Parts: sequence; structure tokens; C-alpha cells
Amino acid sequence: MSRHPTPDDRFSFGLWTVGWTGTDPFGVETRAALDPWEYAARLAELGAWGITFHDNDVFPFDADDATRAKRVAQLKDVADKAGLVIEMVTTNTFTHPVFKDGGFTSNDRAVRRFGLRKVLKNVDLAAELGAETFVMWGGREGSEYDSSKDFHAAFERYKEGLDTVAAYIKAKGYDLVIALEPKPNEPRGDIFLPSVGHALALIAELDNGDIVGLNPETGHEQMAGLNYNHGLAQALFSGKLFHIDLNGQHGLKFDQDLVFGHGDLLSAFFTVDLLVNGFPASPDGPRYTGPIHFDYKPSRTEGMEGVWESAAANMETYLMLKDKALAFRADPEVQETMKASGVLELAQPTLSDGESVEAFLAQQEDFDVAAAANREYHFVKLHQLALRHLIG
Amino acid sequence: MSRHPTPDDRFSFGLWTVGWTGTDPFGVETRAALDPWEYAARLAELGAWGITFHDNDVFPFDADDATRAKRVAQLKDVADKAGLVIEMVTTNTFTHPVFKDGGFTSNDRAVRRFGLRKVLKNVDLAAELGAETFVMWGGREGSEYDSSKDFHAAFERYKEGLDTVAAYIKAKGYDLVIALEPKPNEPRGDIFLPSVGHALALIAELDNGDIVGLNPETGHEQMAGLNYNHGLAQALFSGKLFHIDLNGQHGLKFDQDLVFGHGDLLSAFFTVDLLVNGFPASPDGPRYTGPIHFDYKPSRTEGMEGVWESAAANMETYLMLKDKALAFRADPEVQETMKASGVLELAQPTLSDGESVEAFLAQQEDFDVAAAANREYHFVKLHQLALRHLIG
Amino acid sequence: MSRHPTPDDRFSFGLWTVGWTGTDPFGVETRAALDPWEYAARLAELGAWGITFHDNDVFPFDADDATRAKRVAQLKDVADKAGLVIEMVTTNTFTHPVFKDGGFTSNDRAVRRFGLRKVLKNVDLAAELGAETFVMWGGREGSEYDSSKDFHAAFERYKEGLDTVAAYIKAKGYDLVIALEPKPNEPRGDIFLPSVGHALALIAELDNGDIVGLNPETGHEQMAGLNYNHGLAQALFSGKLFHIDLNGQHGLKFDQDLVFGHGDLLSAFFTVDLLVNGFPASPDGPRYTGPIHFDYKPSRTEGMEGVWESAAANMETYLMLKDKALAFRADPEVQETMKASGVLELAQPTLSDGESVEAFLAQQEDFDVAAAANREYHFVKLHQLALRHLIG
Amino acid sequence: MSRHPTPDDRFSFGLWTVGWTGTDPFGVETRAALDPWEYAARLAELGAWGITFHDNDVFPFDADDATRAKRVAQLKDVADKAGLVIEMVTTNTFTHPVFKDGGFTSNDRAVRRFGLRKVLKNVDLAAELGAETFVMWGGREGSEYDSSKDFHAAFERYKEGLDTVAAYIKAKGYDLVIALEPKPNEPRGDIFLPSVGHALALIAELDNGDIVGLNPETGHEQMAGLNYNHGLAQALFSGKLFHIDLNGQHGLKFDQDLVFGHGDLLSAFFTVDLLVNGFPASPDGPRYTGPIHFDYKPSRTEGMEGVWESAAANMETYLMLKDKALAFRADPEVQETMKASGVLELAQPTLSDGESVEAFLAQQEDFDVAAAANREYHFVKLHQLALRHLIG
Repeated sequence: MSRHPTPDDRFSFGLWTVGWTGTDPFGVETRAALDPWEYAARLAELGAWGITFHDNDVFPFDADDATRAKRVAQLKDVADKAGLVIEMVTTNTFTHPVFKDGGFTSNDRAVRRFGLRKVLKNVDLAAELGAETFVMWGGREGSEYDSSKDFHAAFERYKEGLDTVAAYIKAKGYDLVIALEPKPNEPRGDIFLPSVGHALALIAELDNGDIVGLNPETGHEQMAGLNYNHGLAQALFSGKLFHIDLNGQHGLKFDQDLVFGHGDLLSAFFTVDLLVNGFPASPDGPRYTGPIHFDYKPSRTEGMEGVWESAAANMETYLMLKDKALAFRADPEVQETMKASGVLELAQPTLSDGESVEAFLAQQEDFDVAAAANREYHFVKLHQLALRHLIG
Repeated sequence: MSRHPTPDDRFSFGLWTVGWTGTDPFGVETRAALDPWEYAARLAELGAWGITFHDNDVFPFDADDATRAKRVAQLKDVADKAGLVIEMVTTNTFTHPVFKDGGFTSNDRAVRRFGLRKVLKNVDLAAELGAETFVMWGGREGSEYDSSKDFHAAFERYKEGLDTVAAYIKAKGYDLVIALEPKPNEPRGDIFLPSVGHALALIAELDNGDIVGLNPETGHEQMAGLNYNHGLAQALFSGKLFHIDLNGQHGLKFDQDLVFGHGDLLSAFFTVDLLVNGFPASPDGPRYTGPIHFDYKPSRTEGMEGVWESAAANMETYLMLKDKALAFRADPEVQETMKASGVLELAQPTLSDGESVEAFLAQQEDFDVAAAANREYHFVKLHQLALRHLIG
Repeated sequence: MSRHPTPDDRFSFGLWTVGWTGTDPFGVETRAALDPWEYAARLAELGAWGITFHDNDVFPFDADDATRAKRVAQLKDVADKAGLVIEMVTTNTFTHPVFKDGGFTSNDRAVRRFGLRKVLKNVDLAAELGAETFVMWGGREGSEYDSSKDFHAAFERYKEGLDTVAAYIKAKGYDLVIALEPKPNEPRGDIFLPSVGHALALIAELDNGDIVGLNPETGHEQMAGLNYNHGLAQALFSGKLFHIDLNGQHGLKFDQDLVFGHGDLLSAFFTVDLLVNGFPASPDGPRYTGPIHFDYKPSRTEGMEGVWESAAANMETYLMLKDKALAFRADPEVQETMKASGVLELAQPTLSDGESVEAFLAQQEDFDVAAAANREYHFVKLHQLALRHLIG
Repeated sequence: MSRHPTPDDRFSFGLWTVGWTGTDPFGVETRAALDPWEYAARLAELGAWGITFHDNDVFPFDADDATRAKRVAQLKDVADKAGLVIEMVTTNTFTHPVFKDGGFTSNDRAVRRFGLRKVLKNVDLAAELGAETFVMWGGREGSEYDSSKDFHAAFERYKEGLDTVAAYIKAKGYDLVIALEPKPNEPRGDIFLPSVGHALALIAELDNGDIVGLNPETGHEQMAGLNYNHGLAQALFSGKLFHIDLNGQHGLKFDQDLVFGHGDLLSAFFTVDLLVNGFPASPDGPRYTGPIHFDYKPSRTEGMEGVWESAAANMETYLMLKDKALAFRADPEVQETMKASGVLELAQPTLSDGESVEAFLAQQEDFDVAAAANREYHFVKLHQLALRHLIG
């Protein structure tokens, strides 16, 4: 077995993950709820470095200021004593029925204003607690019916909301960035910003997009059949991989939030490979430097023992995959096969240094079409080498 | 039945659509191939206004310059006589085995240079023929194995390729824009730019992104379970809906390329509603003004009679849906229900004109949470009104 | 608009459909719960003929016998007064945490015995109330992890449970049949009996399978990307279409339970066509003769007005599609095209009456391969005729 | 690395697997075709025990009897010399355009007769070559449009065809069983017998179903989002797992036919666990005893070196997983956790030996609902133990 996780691993968990009591569309809770600081203390014991939460994971939706302050202080106190970092805070704009048609894009303007107020207040809390990232998951921003919304207005309002929050962070001088979390559907029939790509595209339209990036979740991309590692790469390419949510999913179905690695294991291996080793041919390429954050759910069949077994499993799996990924990259046969596969060659620009299009077109290039068509890429061999490292 | 299509409807077809001979992964062709001008002439008779093609729909991959020129001239001649506009041209960088690992993102640099050359040459042809749009579908840009590519380098090369082509168009002064066509998979296991969002996100990173937009295809978005109309709206929001590919698809499976409307009919209705009527609450919002382009395949079971029956079916369905969409929007009960649903309210900014965040936060807002939570949105009623118009 | 539904239409609704209060994985209820008889009374007013329910839709899980009897009587009384038939009863073996690993296939034998007892008791209730069908949806019979169950033992236990219930019905002389409801996933990661096919296959292994059939739900089959109408046809072919659950779904995602027709509308048209007209070339083929049962959910955005609007929408859509389907089949052009398409020809046996294999093989058959390969099937034309009837 | 495969492993390959030349919907072949005996000889060198083929993998569709006999003899000769068993034969009723609407269920009766004749002739060949299994994949039996077929007639014709073939096998006294191969779609929009369940259900309706079973393919079940191992278990439960097709797939998309293990690796582990170790709590339960058959495609990017690398990778992965699965089951901690999880308990009948329903119901059972609701199942722990064995 792998070594015990330590704070150096920078593992963090949402309080709502271990805190999920098992309510699903066809069943009530199977576990009692603990106070948030109880989850935090136990996570620290298991080796976690950080915690994250929604406002209403700590205090109720309708808490008065005193209750709110008291519960936040209690959590902060326990976190401090346990040496836990509160690295990220996020806002619940989805549980209460007032948000049934969304927060920033609800058709009801009064709801939008209420939602914006809730988010801004939570920004203050995030800053106060020293969080570095402010995640925004617009789970209720979407529709079931194409008739039910002016989609253009929805994007306008989404932009307005995000720009307002980002401007507020800047105005306050908070050391905080926003990370959007895409998801294709559930709870809405179709959610706006269904994938990494859509969220990047909206960020590109923002006035204050410089402090807005992404928090891509493994399972959310896979719920659209998309390749999570392609998504991470594009987010890094755009300079926007601000945070990460690791978990497991079995393809196109409801959001399973399994333990990291308990879904598509080969994909998880390459996720860790990317996080740990970076891109193979781009030594100066972008790297993810944030926390290793798990957003999973202990299955509803589990009791409290299972909750902690599953929390530990996320970290153990990551550490096992890390060891494998390091060995994979260090293996000379892998290096050699990568070269044969052209993996390293892709880092070379297509045009030569200083080559103009005119010069390029003027040139009679000696290109053997048949030879290139027959080229052996050895992609299967390379993948099998990865598999050998993974399970060998 | 609906009226006969006319050039005013601006219907256009890819020559490869009616020209598809029925080869699929498990079967050989079921129909003979005609010369491209034969397809063009018949499309004009059916009421089409325009045609589009890949270079190798008109001349072979290895055609010499004389053959190429002769066949292009013959097509042009027929198109002119038939009054057909060649509105879009695109490049085949996927059929020949030389492109088996991609054109712009092949691991093999010599292939990338060959692919770039082929595309640039085709840009000249597009301009020469007066096309307004140059579609680029990177169907082979992708991977089956996460080990087989440096994904960052892939995005760098994709950007390099697109920027080079766009710069060339500008340098030549061509009146041409590029439209990227996203697709999640097939023929590659995972294609880069799998959705409207991902393509918009890459465009935002380009140096010459101003002349690069999108050509979203109905079925391609639906192959990722995504809402096509959400995608169109986001493309319009980003000012990037340059062209459109209409067809039909039954969700998550191979690319079916059915007749428009023969997949998700309700979604097709709202596509036409958006194209014809624009956004309901954004009278000054962005509108699509390009051709109505069909990218479908006559099913492999069809003979040549079926080819033309299916081509006509695309146009007929569009015209029927157009009539329905006009009546839907004009219906006072629909207007009233839209209002009750808050559809129009979403166009109002969340903050008041000139309202600062500070003022907003300072304000004690009188918000009745319970009332808002209980608000009737009447979304089902509104959707049922649409259904009544569609099938009533 | 269509005519008002009447009892002759035999529309029925689950009390849990209009009774759904809007709890989903990310949100609490948005509507208050009424007493079951209140839902029943209103459904009758809307034109419904029947109602159906789970035991715990009417009385709580832990109700004592007196409470149970009182509430059942009250429902019965209201139903009688309103002229409503209680046509189907089903058992809730999924909401309570005791069933978190299943009812009939829980790894815990004591739970299995408890579940069996609950079901048998409910059989008595169903018989007492005069229901004709006893639906069994094993929503918790399944797994998230392939390690967590002996799948063979699970099928053995499933068979044991079903056979026991069926034997009990026979022993008691109840005029009741069992209808299994397949579903691929949600709430379990993978549910046993994920499709119509799997359920038919298990029935074939039962000792008392003669009184066990199916209750296929539109959205459940579509959650696996399967064609609902193919499924209905195979259930009919096996003589097992005992009951039906109509609703709407947008493909591979969480169970949406939209209004019938608000998902795949063309598929809904052909469902109604099959129910109303039967198979086109099999006049003596099997027909569905049961109630038209809707198992949908009023979207969480809807208030109580929306609940009733959505309930009415199911019936209205069905009636509209029925009119269309009747006209479609009566249309001489449709009949003629069906003939050209070979639809009627498929009813002819492949071997001639009395033709032995030996005779068949001995015969030199004059078959023009090229002509058959080129045959025009006109499938697209026929489908477009259907579309014209649907929206024309 | 694992040991070299030997004939004792009983690995077999379709000649069409390594023989796939790379034609896909958007590209022509990337590899030259070898003669079938060349593939066979090389497979034997790699350690394969058996080969399988479609008639037209060995001789052309329109081969005359002499050509047919000559090519079959040549293959047989090479197989014999190499010590290869021809364990299964199957018929190509999908490539030629004559089958564009199916073989057994084509709307055209003359085509059905032609298809039946082709299959029966191929049965003779299978018997002549000593094959034990006759696979039937009805890839063209299906539809794109619900209007295009009488589905009931289609099932009647499918039954007629299968029963005729099975009766012929019996009449001839061949030592041959039929194995149906389900697939949800591709090349048809919806294929009849889309899953293991649907095929089992049709078999249950056959007159000669006793010699008809299944050949489930990993990727085909996963193309409907179904759990392959659940499917294998149900096929075994029905006594119908006659043959197996192992490969890899990434969920809902076109049929990828990746190397076994290159898709969902954890699922592949449990497939091998089931094949090697049987069901954990059912020592007398059904076991698969047939060949380990791979039905995969060397990716189109691969040259001939990659073809053989990928063929070897299937066997290597299987052997690695076999070692892991043996160690997993032998691990005392795993055994103990299985017990704690109730995995073994599921093998106990729910009713006691000889317990009647009456006695069961009469009994006042002492059942602690709250305790059962809180039971720890330790499913995540058990799964993590499997993961540790797999990658530890």
C-alpha cells in the first residue's frame, strides 16, 4: 500500500462530500449529519491539508448574523487547531426553492438580485477566511425547455453577475480568484456552461475575466462523454486552470461522484500524470499548481465507517497513481516510444522559425505522401506501456 | 404541405451530402457516385440556392493542376447556369491515410506542413469562387489514447495553423471568414474542439480570431448530449455564429446525419424559431444572417430517388417549421404566457442603470423569499403552447 | 386544440407524479404535499380515468394498521365518488434507508425478508382495491461496484422473490398480474433489469412467469439510448406488455420524467401510433389493451398551477398524437409508400408455406443481387410523410 | 511483464480484427490487406490458440465454388500447420449493399431468402472446419425510422430465421451451437437485439432455442451505457454464455473496438475475475468455459507493426488481469471484507429451506429496521481493495 497522505500532498475535501447524508431522487438520508467541524477534524486526521465549503454547509440559509458568525468561528477554530487550510469557499445558490430557476439567470429579477447579494456576502467570508479560490457552480442556471428562456439574455445576465462579483473582489482588494465549475445537466435539464469549453468561452467575454478561471470536475466532463484530460489541457492552454475537482463517474448518467479512480481508471492515471509531470513535450508549458481537491460522495450504502474509508481511498488512489506516473515517465522505453510516436515532435512549430507563409508556399517541399501515410505511430504500444506501469 | 423552396430561402447543401454513396464502417457503397455538377444541377431544380464542397468532392486528392482546374471550371459553369451560389468551401484533411493522426495537430511535422499547404491552396480556391465562408472541420485532430499526444502542444499547433490561415486570408485581402466545426468524436476517439464551447474558447486565444467563428452542426452537439440551441445562443452571444449545419441525430451514438427534423423535432422547431424570429426578449440581440445549410446524409437504404426525396425533405421541414414558429410567436396567448414565465424579464439587467455594487449592497432590499420560492413560472404551459403550435 | 379527455380514454396517473414536491439531488421541495385524495380528486376533474400509487404514497412507511386502513379507505372513498379506477398498485422498496442495497437482492438477508413481507402485504392491498396490475420497479436492486455483489446470487434472489410473489398471487386467487419496470440506472449505478430485454429474459427463467410481464417506461429505455418503440414491440412479441409508463426524456442523463411528448416527439408519435393502430402489417398481431398510464414529474420550477397544467398536457398531447396517427394510417399515399417500402412484405414468412429447408436449399433461386442491392426502399419519403402528418 | 501466452490460455482472434485495414466513415484504408492465412500464421506465432472468421474474410462475396474451396483449404492448411483451432465461424450479412435493410429482417423477402441461404451454406462450412460455435451478429437487422418496419413482423422473421438455422444444425447432426451477438446501434440507427437482455428474450421465444446462446461483446454493451459484467452474469444465469468478445470502449459513441483493457479498465478486471474465478459466493454457479476471444481493431493510426503490437496487447492485458484477479480472491482481507459486505450472504435463499409463504407471513419476525438502515456495507473499502490489487 501507499504511504499515508501528508499536508505536503495538499489534499483538500469539500465538507459537503463526507457530509453528504445520502438523500437522492428516490431515497431519504441514510446517515446522520455531523457538525461541519466534526468532518473537518476527521479529515485532518486522515491526512488532508485543506477543506472547502458552501456557505450553507456551515450555517443555515436563514441564519441570522450571530448564528452565522458563531458557526463560522467554530469551524475556523477547529481548522486552525487541526492545521487545516480553508482553501476555497463557494456559494449555495441551488438548494433553496427560491433558486429553482437559477440565481444569476433566473427569469425573476428579484431572485437574481437576491442571489447576487448572497454571493457577494460569501465573497467577504471567503476573503475573511483566507481562501484563495471562490468557486461558482451555476447548477440551477439552465433550462428544461427551449421556450422557457431568452438564452441570449441568460448569457448577458450570467456575464453581468460574474463581472459584478469579479469587480467587487478587485475593488475590495481581495486576494481571491473565481473558478467556474461546468456541468452539462442535473439538476437542470441543460445547464449553461455545460463543459470546460463553454465556461472558457464565457470568460473570454467578461470585462473582469482576468481573475476568472475554471474548476473542472472529472465526472462533469465525463457526463457529456468528453475527455477530462483534453479539458484540463485546454483550460491550461487558456491559462485558466485555477482549481480542480477530482472524482469518479461511469459515463453518461446521473452525477455519481464516486471516489477518484473508481470510475475510468486509465483516465485518472493520465490526470495524475498531467498534474504531477506536466505535458511530456512542453517543459515550459503551463502547470497546475493548486490544491488536489476531491469532490466525491460516499455511496449511500455506506455508514460512517464507509464515509472515512472512502475519503481515505481518494487520497490513497491519488498517491498510488502518482508513483505509477513518475515511474512511467522515467522509463527509458517509454521515452523512446514517445519519440517514435512523435509525441515530442508535436512541440515543434509547423512553420520554421521566421518562416513566412509566402516563403512556405513558394517552397517546393519534398514530401513523401505514401511514406507518411504508412508511418507507424506505435500509439497502441505506448498505451500498453502505460497500462503495464499502471497494473504491472 | 408547404410551399416549394426558392432562392430567397437561401437553402444550401454540401455536395458530399447528396453525394454520399453509403459506405459505412460495416458496408460498402450502395449508390454510384455522380459527378459533382450533376448533384449541383439537381439541387438547383429542387429549389436550393447554394452549394458547398470539400476540395476533394470536386477533384481527386492527387489531381494535377489541369484536372483540378478543369473540374472546378465545370462545376462553376453548371452552378452559374443553374443560378447556384457557391457560398462555402471546406478542405478534406481526413480521408487520405496521410492524415490518420490529423492535419494541423498530427504528431508528424511534415504532415502538418502538407496539411497546411493543402488548406491554404483551398483558401485560394474558395476566394476565387466567391465563397464567403471557409469551414474547417478538424475531424482527425484528436486522439484515442491520452498517452499519444502532448495535448498542450496540440493546442499550440491548432492555434498556429488557424492563425496562419487567417493571416493568409487577411494578407490576400480575401472577403472570407473561417468557421470552425466542432464535433466530440468520430472518426477520432476524442476530437479536439468537441463542442461549440471548446471552439469558441480556442478562437479567444487566436491572434487573428476576428475572422474566425463557428459552423455548429445539430447532430454534433447532440452527440455529446448537449442542447444545440443553447450552443447556437452562446455562439451568437460571442458574435461567432458565422455558418450553420442543420441535420438530425438520435443522441449519443455514431454520427447519423439524418434529415433536419428527423431527429429531435422539438429542438429543431426551436432552432428554426431562433433563426427566424431571434431571441424573444432581445430585439436588438444578435441574429444569424447566413445561409441555411444542410449537412445530412441520405440513408444508406435509399437509392437515387431516395437521395432527392431526402434532400427535398430537409427544405420542406424547415419551411413547415418556419410557418409554425412565426405563428407561435405571433400568438397573443404565447406572448402573455412568456410574460408570466418571466421570459421577457430576463432581458432586464440585474443591477439598475447606474447602480453601483456599493449602493446595491447598502440597500435593504425588500425581498419576499417565500413568495419567490412559490412563484409559478408556467414553463410547462408555455412549452405545451409550443407543442400545440407545432403539431396542432 | 384537442377534445377534453374522458374516462373512455383510460388515462391514469401515479399519485406520486402530480404529488412530486420537487426534491432533487441538489434541492429541497418547492411545493407542499397534498393528501393523496386531493390529487386523486383533481385528476378526475381533469378527465383521468384511473389512479395508481405506491403503498407509501398513501400511508407512511411506519404507519400502524389503523392509520393505514384509515388512509386507504379515505382514498378509496374519494376515488369511488370521483369515478376513478385504482388500476395499479406498486410497492415502495426504495425510499427508506433500510433498502439502500435493495429489497429482493440486498446482501442482507433480513432486509430481503423484510422487503418480501412488505411487497406481499401490498399485494393484498392491491387485490383488495381491485387493481389489475401490480408493478414492481426494483430501483434499488443493483450495484455501484462490481465487487459488491455476487451477480449470480442476485439473479437467483430476484427470481426467488418474483416467483414467491407470483405464487402468492396465484395461491390467493387474486386477479392480478405483475409488471416489471426496467431502468438502466438511478438511483443505483447499474440497476439489474436495465431494459425491456433484460426483464423479459428474467421472466423467461421464472417458475411463475405466466403472470409476470412488463411496464416499460419511455424515459427509462431512452436513458440507455434504446428505441422505446422497438422495446414495446419486443414486449408485445413476447406477450408481455402488461402495462405502460408514458413520459418524456432527453436521452442519456438523469431521469427527467418530462410530460409525454416533451422529450422525443417523433418517437412519441410512433408510440401512440402503435398503441392506437397496432402493427401496420400484422392485423392479427398482439395489441396493447391496458390503461394509458403517465409516469412523469411536474418540473420543479412549477407551482401547483403548473402541476395541473402539466398533468393536462400529458393527456392533451396523447389525444393530439392519436388524431395524427389515425390520419397517418388512413392516408392512401402513406399506404402506397408503405407498400413500396416493403413494410407489408415483412409479414410474409421467409420460407413458403410448407417449404422445408431441404427443398429451399435444393432450389436454384433466381435472385438478381444487383437489382436487390439497388432497390429503392423510400424510407425517408415514408418518414417525411409521417412528419407531414405530425406537424403539417 | 507477464508471461507469453500459450495455447492453454485459449486465446482466439477474428481474422477481421488484425485484418481491419482502417476504413472508417471518414477515411479510406491505411493498411494493405494480407491474405487470411498470413494473419493466421502470425497470430499463432504470438501465442494465439484459435482463429475465427466471417465467410467473406476468407473468400469474396461472389466467389465461385472453386475459389471458395481453394481459399478455405489454404486457410485450413495454414491453421493446421500452426496448430490453430478454428473455433468459431460467422457470416457476413452486412457488407454487401444487398443487405442494406438487413438479412433475416429485410423488408424484401427475396433478400431474406438470399441471406438465409448464405447463412445455411456457412453453417456447413463451420461444421466442416470443426468450429464449435456459429456466431450471428445481425448488424443490419434494425431501422433508422420507426415508420420503416413492422417491428412485430421483424421479430417474427428474426425468429423464423434463427429457428430455421438451428433446426438445420440439428437435422444435420452438427456439433455446433449458435451464439447471437447483441449491439445497440451502428451501422443501423437502432439494431434489433440491442443488448444481452434483448437477445436472451428472443431466444426464449425460439422453438430451437436450446442450441442458441450469446456472444456478448464488451464494447457493445457499453455503447448503451450498460454494465458488461452484469450482462455476462445474466447470460450465465440463463445458461446462455456460449462465447465471448473482449475489447475496449469509451462509453456512448461509435464502436471503437479498442484493445481489451484500453477502455474501462476496472470493468475489464472484473470481467477477468468472473471468467477466471467464477462468482464469489456461488461455487456451484455457472462458469464460462469457452475460448477467450478478442474482437478488437488495431487503431487506424497503426501500421503493420502496430497491428501485431495491439494483438499481443490484448493477450498480455488479459494475463496481467488474470494474475491480479487470482491474488485478489486469495487475499484474506478481501475474503473478510466480502463477508462484512454481505457478498456471501446473498447466496442464501431469502426463504428458509422448506419455508412456505404462509409460514413466512404468519411468523412475527424480529427485524430491527433502524439497525438494518444503518448497516455498514463497506462496499467502497472492498472496491478499494480491488483497486489496490489491480494497481498496487
